[in-house]
Amino acid sequence: MQIPSAADTICALATPSGAGALAVIRLSGKNAFTIGNALFRTKKGKQKNFETVKPYTLHFGNLMEGIEIIDEVLVSVFKGPHSYTGEDTLEFSCHGSTFIQQRVLQQLQREGARMAEPGEYTLRAFLNGKLDLSQAEAVADLIAAEHASAHRSALQQLRGGYSTTIRNLRQQLIDFASLLELELDFAEEDVEFANRDHLKILVQTLLKEVHHLRQSFATGNALKQGIPVVIAGKPNVGKSTLLNALLNEEKAIVSEIAGTTRDVIEDHMVIEGLRFRFMDTAGIRITEDVIEKIGVERTFSNAGKASVVLYLIDPAKSDAQSIREELVELTDKTGNDDYDVITVINKVDQHPAIEKNIQFNEFPNPVFISAKEQMHLEELKTLLLVTAKKQIRSGDTEIVTNARHAEALTNAEVSLSKVLEGMNHQLSTDLLALELKSALIYLGEITGEIYTDDLLGNIFSKFCIGK
Amino acid sequence: MQIPSAADTICALATPSGAGALAVIRLSGKNAFTIGNALFRTKKGKQKNFETVKPYTLHFGNLMEGIEIIDEVLVSVFKGPHSYTGEDTLEFSCHGSTFIQQRVLQQLQREGARMAEPGEYTLRAFLNGKLDLSQAEAVADLIAAEHASAHRSALQQLRGGYSTTIRNLRQQLIDFASLLELELDFAEEDVEFANRDHLKILVQTLLKEVHHLRQSFATGNALKQGIPVVIAGKPNVGKSTLLNALLNEEKAIVSEIAGTTRDVIEDHMVIEGLRFRFMDTAGIRITEDVIEKIGVERTFSNAGKASVVLYLIDPAKSDAQSIREELVELTDKTGNDDYDVITVINKVDQHPAIEKNIQFNEFPNPVFISAKEQMHLEELKTLLLVTAKKQIRSGDTEIVTNARHAEALTNAEVSLSKVLEGMNHQLSTDLLALELKSALIYLGEITGEIYTDDLLGNIFSKFCIGK
Repeated sequence: MQIPSAADTICALATPSGAGALAVIRLSGKNAFTIGNALFRTKKGKQKNFETVKPYTLHFGNLMEGIEIIDEVLVSVFKGPHSYTGEDTLEFSCHGSTFIQQRVLQQLQREGARMAEPGEYTLRAFLNGKLDLSQAEAVADLIAAEHASAHRSALQQLRGGYSTTIRNLRQQLIDFASLLELELDFAEEDVEFANRDHLKILVQTLLKEVHHLRQSFATGNALKQGIPVVIAGKPNVGKSTLLNALLNEEKAIVSEIAGTTRDVIEDHMVIEGLRFRFMDTAGIRITEDVIEKIGVERTFSNAGKASVVLYLIDPAKSDAQSIREELVELTDKTGNDDYDVITVINKVDQHPAIEKNIQFNEFPNPVFISAKEQMHLEELKTLLLVTAKKQIRSGDTEIVTNARHAEALTNAEVSLSKVLEGMNHQLSTDLLALELKSALIYLGEITGEIYTDDLLGNIFSKFCIGK
Repeated sequence: MQIPSAADTICALATPSGAGALAVIRLSGKNAFTIGNALFRTKKGKQKNFETVKPYTLHFGNLMEGIEIIDEVLVSVFKGPHSYTGEDTLEFSCHGSTFIQQRVLQQLQREGARMAEPGEYTLRAFLNGKLDLSQAEAVADLIAAEHASAHRSALQQLRGGYSTTIRNLRQQLIDFASLLELELDFAEEDVEFANRDHLKILVQTLLKEVHHLRQSFATGNALKQGIPVVIAGKPNVGKSTLLNALLNEEKAIVSEIAGTTRDVIEDHMVIEGLRFRFMDTAGIRITEDVIEKIGVERTFSNAGKASVVLYLIDPAKSDAQSIREELVELTDKTGNDDYDVITVINKVDQHPAIEKNIQFNEFPNPVFISAKEQMHLEELKTLLLVTAKKQIRSGDTEIVTNARHAEALTNAEVSLSKVLEGMNHQLSTDLLALELKSALIYLGEITGEIYTDDLLGNIFSKFCIGK
């Protein structure tokens, strides 16, 4: 993709579209002040020279189209490099009618500005060294954040996050890589500029850090997309009723007929700032129905990817022995046990004595509810919150939430492992240098020290216009 | 209605709701700076004292919730009385996520601000003497303006418009009224403080001005709501086809059956910044169909209120004599001829020779089109524009667009006429004084020199929140 020219002066609406009390239009680039001078007049009709006014000041006046006033505006003045983009910038705060917004943008274009591409302001901020690439990506995440944990991790990343850690380690690796290159230049003479023991320690440190960050993506992704919670169990134990009760709406179709749910039904819910992604699944049973059979398979594959499985039980139909078997089957069929299980004993309204039955104590996290009567749902939510928070390593501030970073870290980890392995097997310097270079590229892609136009295009095209 | 307390410090989102690159939150009132001081920290973590910083400056830093950063913000500082509301004001420009907006507003409220009512910022501006009432109303009109002429008249009104004229004349009237009151105090002594000849001249001048302004409301309302254009004619001459062709969409149902349209079908269109309100009507004929009969009556009553009537003719079915009769019937049944008629000869595609037929020249503004084949529609639009612009008295900058003002002007005109009439008939001073007082109240209501809480409540409740 073509990266838009940084020589142009660009303009865009920065506030949400539609009518409101006010709207803000941004103008950034080398001609921002000239364009502003041409269009702005003070209340007394005088021209202003934005080149010479103090930065970080506000100016009230009229925005003109020839001799006609378009609107009363308040202009904020930022001088490069001390602006968001690093360029000279004016922000026009005008009345929030779409008609006025359009007229103002038309005038800015008539004076030589062009409409900004999506994310072009932040792209310029990146190209001008105001933000690294992972910080630029955090800006989009911050705007998209709908709940506290996504907001917190985006803000963390915007403020530097793990960029600094990666950048520092990468810098040391670069030093070694150049020493290795030097050795290659003197290949005939069999000298060793790069101390192999030191290199080994550095690679080991880096591997540990990279591995740690890569692993944090599971948490980071959960924080961003929602912690995956699968509701599973035999048919007719009340899974869809529980989903509806948790969401407080009729999301899933509920009936007396076993096998009602076949597709996986999903919805989100935020509990105390943490986003949960609930999935209602087909009841686990042997069936001849082709669609239901696919549904049951999906139940297992979804549970395998879940952080928490709410395993629902109808106490009238299950005893301790059968529950034991069901839970073993779950582990077998999902192929892992990376998730926490909460054993949810449902329909206590019909069996009030059951809560005192100690036979359920052997199962993981037992909780007694009635989905239908909305009994003890708060207890279930609290238990869910506690379980989820245990999974999110507390105090861990360096959490990767970005899939692109996770991929780069995975690649870097592979390359670094090869370097380490190579050193253990006395691999030749040129092959070592090659693997080191790969690792450097992968790590550099995270912070944007290495990038291609395609990479930038891919990242910034997902931004909104005006950012 | 209860006017919200002006002693509170108020906050609100000023930009449209939803996610965008940035959002602006306003904080205004006597504690604005104290609240800002409590929540804002510089990038170095230091507190700022907004009391002592220069007005019209911008400050970059973090907005805090305790020790946690909510967002990076840019704060604009305005010091009363030099702000929109006339009070100390801070504007926080933050990242445009709804989550952040909510968190910022929550923090401002926790520090003692309350959410602003709709229009409360402008209400305060009015109460603090920054705007008169007609200017305050213009702010709402400006935000709602969707086309050039509505925008221009709102901006005109915001900049003072006819307020000054009314205020000046009213002030002179007040002087006379107080002299009359003085006469009443000395009633026993038969003195005359108020020169009746001068008063008469003043009332006449005022009457002329008020009458002129009241009349301009027809234009003003047309500019704001759209110039009413009625499409009329016999059944099956192609009225609905013309509406659809003008709007370029299938708005009205078209068929070969006479009497297809019975309801009046409306839609808007902007031509060169002027908004037109087109109304397609039932074809004019004698009919037994009860609903169609009502439709035909509505055709006439709508045409009576129109600025322009597009009178459609099918040349295959009408000759000069029948058209003459039709136009006379139109004038008779509408009861007035305040509208301009454009004689639209339709279906020229079927009768190409007709354009040379001079028999149509006797009719007002003849134009030859084919609605079905979209022939000569541009000519019709141009003619419409020229006709409408002739109606809008050119160079007339004092145009009333507000229905409330028009009503007050009508009432003032009645009272002033009574004053004049009373003087001609030697009415007693106390009755004269009473009528003068009514006129003063009506005029004062326009600019807000006289107001009730109900009036304010009524006006500002229509504003958006944050303005």
